[in-house]
Amino acid sequence: MDSGDMKHLVLVKFKEGISIQEIVEGMESLASKLEYVKAFEWGQDVGSEELLRQGFTYVFTLTFGSPEDFMAYSSHPSHLEFAGKFMAAIEKVIVFDYTPGFMKSSEEKLA
Amino acid sequence: MDSGDMKHLVLVKFKEGISIQEIVEGMESLASKLEYVKAFEWGQDVGSEELLRQGFTYVFTLTFGSPEDFMAYSSHPSHLEFAGKFMAAIEKVIVFDYTPGFMKSSEEKLA
Repeated sequence: MDSGDMKHLVLVKFKEGISIQEIVEGMESLASKLEYVKAFEWGQDVGSEELLRQGFTYVFTLTFGSPEDFMAYSSHPSHLEFAGKFMAAIEKVIVFDYTPGFMKSSEEKLA
Repeated sequence: MDSGDMKHLVLVKFKEGISIQEIVEGMESLASKLEYVKAFEWGQDVGSEELLRQGFTYVFTLTFGSPEDFMAYSSHPSHLEFAGKFMAAIEKVIVFDYTPGFMKSSEEKLA
């Protein structure tokens, strides 16, 4: 994690009947193919309180080395093609872009 | 990132007039103090589309080595005390707990 990093967080609820595996594999393939993507992580909810989770079931986080790399990714034809399929598969979504402000790892414990 | 890791993601919109710096520092202090917390990251939105961001402005991500560590953190008196202050400071929140399913780093590029 470098100081110029930017993260693109996508929280979604998929429509019923959608092949989620296909979507996840598509995103993995996209993240692997496009060099602008520095890191990719996804996760499925493992039991947050329903009230606090508000129906969201999957999270995807993409890390970029700079805002420029994120822009290059966003406008890449392969991303645009995938984004069309993705948006058609979801019931609701929240997108949140940020620069990580602080990290603790077990190697740099302060206390 | 080990295979047993669990992440606790909190997306918030703070109330107006709140000292956000105080809250962030409080969470940093808590994450540093409690050994159950393996990693801590926070970020402020840097300009996602308002429609897709839905008013959320800050994200906090805590990483734990196991669900048991997360439970120990959740029920720790220092966390409970902080959680009270935190919940009083926010207008809305989404909490999402997951086990990371896949990671790409620049060292293990597939393409």
